[in-house]
Amino acid sequence: MLVVTLLTDFGAGSGYPAQVKGVLLGRLPRVHLVDISHEVPPFDVLWGALLLEACVPSFPDDAVHLAVVDPGVGTKRRAIALADPAGRRFVAPDNGLLTPFLLEGARIHEIRPGGALPVPKSATFHGRDLLAPAAALLAEGLDVSGLGPAVTDPERLAFPGATHRPGVVEGVTLTADRFGNLLTSIRDPDLRDERVLAATVADREVRFVTTFGDGERGELVLYVGSGGRIEVAVREGSAAEELGKVRGHRVELILAKR
Amino acid sequence: MLVVTLLTDFGAGSGYPAQVKGVLLGRLPRVHLVDISHEVPPFDVLWGALLLEACVPSFPDDAVHLAVVDPGVGTKRRAIALADPAGRRFVAPDNGLLTPFLLEGARIHEIRPGGALPVPKSATFHGRDLLAPAAALLAEGLDVSGLGPAVTDPERLAFPGATHRPGVVEGVTLTADRFGNLLTSIRDPDLRDERVLAATVADREVRFVTTFGDGERGELVLYVGSGGRIEVAVREGSAAEELGKVRGHRVELILAKR
Amino acid sequence: MLVVTLLTDFGAGSGYPAQVKGVLLGRLPRVHLVDISHEVPPFDVLWGALLLEACVPSFPDDAVHLAVVDPGVGTKRRAIALADPAGRRFVAPDNGLLTPFLLEGARIHEIRPGGALPVPKSATFHGRDLLAPAAALLAEGLDVSGLGPAVTDPERLAFPGATHRPGVVEGVTLTADRFGNLLTSIRDPDLRDERVLAATVADREVRFVTTFGDGERGELVLYVGSGGRIEVAVREGSAAEELGKVRGHRVELILAKR
Repeated sequence: MLVVTLLTDFGAGSGYPAQVKGVLLGRLPRVHLVDISHEVPPFDVLWGALLLEACVPSFPDDAVHLAVVDPGVGTKRRAIALADPAGRRFVAPDNGLLTPFLLEGARIHEIRPGGALPVPKSATFHGRDLLAPAAALLAEGLDVSGLGPAVTDPERLAFPGATHRPGVVEGVTLTADRFGNLLTSIRDPDLRDERVLAATVADREVRFVTTFGDGERGELVLYVGSGGRIEVAVREGSAAEELGKVRGHRVELILAKR
Repeated sequence: MLVVTLLTDFGAGSGYPAQVKGVLLGRLPRVHLVDISHEVPPFDVLWGALLLEACVPSFPDDAVHLAVVDPGVGTKRRAIALADPAGRRFVAPDNGLLTPFLLEGARIHEIRPGGALPVPKSATFHGRDLLAPAAALLAEGLDVSGLGPAVTDPERLAFPGATHRPGVVEGVTLTADRFGNLLTSIRDPDLRDERVLAATVADREVRFVTTFGDGERGELVLYVGSGGRIEVAVREGSAAEELGKVRGHRVELILAKR
Repeated sequence: MLVVTLLTDFGAGSGYPAQVKGVLLGRLPRVHLVDISHEVPPFDVLWGALLLEACVPSFPDDAVHLAVVDPGVGTKRRAIALADPAGRRFVAPDNGLLTPFLLEGARIHEIRPGGALPVPKSATFHGRDLLAPAAALLAEGLDVSGLGPAVTDPERLAFPGATHRPGVVEGVTLTADRFGNLLTSIRDPDLRDERVLAATVADREVRFVTTFGDGERGELVLYVGSGGRIEVAVREGSAAEELGKVRGHRVELILAKR
């Protein structure tokens, strides 16, 4: 059975995700609907993009991913559909939410009401009135090009990355999970197979370990997280609490050839 | 595949919705279970009724809707099943939760244990022990009249509405969503196709716009929401926070013929 | 269709449950995935065990239950699969989370990577990388013995129980639900069909009733809850708030033969 995932900042209990699902089920009687999250902090497009990046690879390649974090709903921003070379399909507002998937070979089209798509009933709920019908059409086999004209200039987030100096890679903390573990802008490949000699988070020296289980209880540590990003954690504690905020802590790794 | 929706004030993580789903899946091997919400504020029957009103129209007409917000569980209040002319079925406590669907042509029957229905195992969990088996029977095709005797006097909420004076329609704020947008007791038809000349919320003059995207950042605005009710919002902000509480703010619209 | 349930302390909106589901759906195209809870308080293994105990009986006996509350992830603790005489299957860390199901006739095996199971991609996300593939194999019909060697010494929680003196049964409060109702360590069978003459909670005299609906508004009462445990509640109020904390209040029942 085909999978359609949902990621929004609507709040799971708000009734808005349910309305999107109602529309999908009305058009797709046989589908698995899976919530990635409806608790993206309101309007935090970067948070949503990072969650998509972490979660999409766990799903079958023929899944359709519907994502809405949309400070600009009700303005003239476009909605887009994206198909990547692996066959994955996405529908989302054109505001950078799909940045992790704007890669070579991705084909992007505007989702334009009319034709196969209904004219939205409301000016404020495109997730239900435009993106859900578009996702249903893609799930039924329509190519993204059937939804509207090609888009060659999609919005991109200035995705925080890692900066490299000889022997040093540097980044920042970006998001937190429920345990207070912080994801950073440094990814596993940024280590270039070198050894981490020493590390700091917010100018505090911390150990770089294989897993937080290697830390002492209460110790702040760095490690490669399950999504391939360097993470900051406190074993059986909260790094977010320990450090006082989630986003923007400087993380520095000193590297040496193995 | 048939759809059964769930709306409760149990809390999604409490385990209670899971128990209801377990019972449904034991009786209905082929069904889509969709959560409308489990985060209705505890015992807030009006909130639940408004969420049902907003969400039910997005679902297929042959769906069965199970709803439990039930300050009186464990007392003698009845449970009811309702079938409306569109074919939609509902099961809920008889406490006004289904008020939006108590319309002409609705047939209402008591859900009475015994016969096809098991005697509830517990005095406190009718959602699992009585309503879930009843919903499963309806989903399998039983008519609501098979669940118990007809009910001619269902409980109704005194649903806050709009009051009309020449050139003026007035209402109150009722609920908030996660963004702090407030739903009001005024609906789109209350505007009678007239033009909104001026508006106030809690005695503050506000603009009436097409969508909150038409507001300036931080501006309090009124508009027709995605569920057909007049809503109060702050663009990229929270009207609930701006106004200090959710329920009971007076909203007044001055109308003029187009 | 087969049912796989999920219980974790990940947080529903964290993206982690979604990744587990993505792996399950990639391997099991026809399955019902049901969330029991993702809001178990972080690392609270006892809370998770009590939720499983309360919820599992509502599901069909051929369901597979995946549970992760795992302060020791990333350490050397084992993962286990359990099959009980009723045919229910479980996968979980070996840390006591399955204590309510470690009963006579249960067969327990280690989940050991290799063979049918992939080597986990990450050291920190066994729920996704080890337990989800194991659950999928069980759902497809593999016996638990196919996952690894038999385990004869599984970890057990020192599950708080009831203590009996002539005419008295005593226990403690353990967890709370969203309404502030408190579950206790005393179960219905501990009453041995005797009558409750008098009761105290935290040294306050309270009535023992059939359901909280029998209490006055605001009254603290005891009754047999829907999961078969004695519960403490305040009608239309919160016992957790009334008593100031959730865990550890002493509960005493004075019994008399009927």
